[in-house]
Amino acid sequence: MLERHDRTDENAAIAQDWAYRLAILTASDKGSRGQRRDVSAQVIRDLTSPFCQVISYSVVPDEKETISRELIRLADELAADLILTTGGTGLSARDVTPEATLAVVDRLVPGFTEHMRAKGLEKTPHALLSRAVAGVRGQTLIINLPGSPRGVEENLSVILPALPHGLEILTGRCGECG
Amino acid sequence: MLERHDRTDENAAIAQDWAYRLAILTASDKGSRGQRRDVSAQVIRDLTSPFCQVISYSVVPDEKETISRELIRLADELAADLILTTGGTGLSARDVTPEATLAVVDRLVPGFTEHMRAKGLEKTPHALLSRAVAGVRGQTLIINLPGSPRGVEENLSVILPALPHGLEILTGRCGECG
Amino acid sequence: MLERHDRTDENAAIAQDWAYRLAILTASDKGSRGQRRDVSAQVIRDLTSPFCQVISYSVVPDEKETISRELIRLADELAADLILTTGGTGLSARDVTPEATLAVVDRLVPGFTEHMRAKGLEKTPHALLSRAVAGVRGQTLIINLPGSPRGVEENLSVILPALPHGLEILTGRCGECG
Repeated sequence: MLERHDRTDENAAIAQDWAYRLAILTASDKGSRGQRRDVSAQVIRDLTSPFCQVISYSVVPDEKETISRELIRLADELAADLILTTGGTGLSARDVTPEATLAVVDRLVPGFTEHMRAKGLEKTPHALLSRAVAGVRGQTLIINLPGSPRGVEENLSVILPALPHGLEILTGRCGECG
Repeated sequence: MLERHDRTDENAAIAQDWAYRLAILTASDKGSRGQRRDVSAQVIRDLTSPFCQVISYSVVPDEKETISRELIRLADELAADLILTTGGTGLSARDVTPEATLAVVDRLVPGFTEHMRAKGLEKTPHALLSRAVAGVRGQTLIINLPGSPRGVEENLSVILPALPHGLEILTGRCGECG
Repeated sequence: MLERHDRTDENAAIAQDWAYRLAILTASDKGSRGQRRDVSAQVIRDLTSPFCQVISYSVVPDEKETISRELIRLADELAADLILTTGGTGLSARDVTPEATLAVVDRLVPGFTEHMRAKGLEKTPHALLSRAVAGVRGQTLIINLPGSPRGVEENLSVILPALPHGLEILTGRCGECG
């Protein structure tokens, strides 16, 4: 299991220069009280491990201000290249991760979440209920994923082929490929 | 035909506890002057009758402020679970239903209208011209539909499979299914 | 090649009453310094020539304020029916054309860019990285296209079938067809 403080990844010692700095943020009332095993965060780490190293893993309750504040910390202080959130993207009253994200991004990247919904709809009509958004804050890409492990796996798999190139351009590692 | 005041549905007497409270709002300059038979509203009632009861039907002119005010009344005073609008989603100068909707929702649900456009594009390239939006105000889901009866039928059919579950989560009838 | 001042099209003399007034705006730091041949603008002119005449072609650096100001000039002073931008829609730090566009439109038309991304994804997963937006300012439709000639050709081809009808409604040439 991922632990809840910065830079806990056991691979930290052999920090990989080529890897993008990934922060995982779980929004979950239950999770923040330690009442839920966070399989979704694990799925995120596994799927992104070919090109990312986890620099931070945190769990916060479904409060808009708290989520926004944590996103700012991860982007501005920890200099994450990528923040993947899980949870809080649905229609229930406590689901506010998209609003917390919209409040802190400078630029939107609608294609990530449009594509997750379009592909999800091939499996279930409920895929259109995901309110996930994606955007950029400074040089940090922030993408919302759903809360369930299966939802995370399906949605993240769909956008994974575009992530390395997107991060390459965003972080400026790739001068002219934009 | 639907009449233009609250709670006109003849089934009102046998009010259905399980049914969601639906308000139909037609935005139409002509309709508001009584110059047009409103077949679209009828199509909405027919398609949603398996899980909704109509608690209100109103027709307003294509004025942004008027539409916004009516949406607020339907959501806050009448406690509609679902508001389906018809009309005012196109490109003509008077089409302002999306803007009136954006002005009153707390949270967006982009998947409804993304999916309506994507499916519509399988039939006609003009489907991309619909500017419809969907969002949540409090515990009320608001979705824009086009003005024509055929447009309403096609678009509503596309999202209908996701509506009951969406309303279940939004209204909190379903504790843990989000 | 297109020249960089208003109304340079050699067909100006035989101005076509039926044609929509098209302004092409290239956002490119290099282009604005004359360091790049602007093939993309040429592709735009060629693909739209069946129903548009070019009334303006301008090149500006990737500065949000400058792009916004130019969009306002093209819409309000030159009365363009359609403005097609090329460039500045990606993830690099200098890509701000969508933000410059969002700052000046009254109404969004999300279907254009949703559809461009969806069709682009059939060819490459990187299509989802385009942050292009489309919207209306007064009676002017503004659509962002990517920077590369191939990107312009692919994206513009996708939405071309809906453009004449959209412009017909927007400009009011078509009274009741909305």
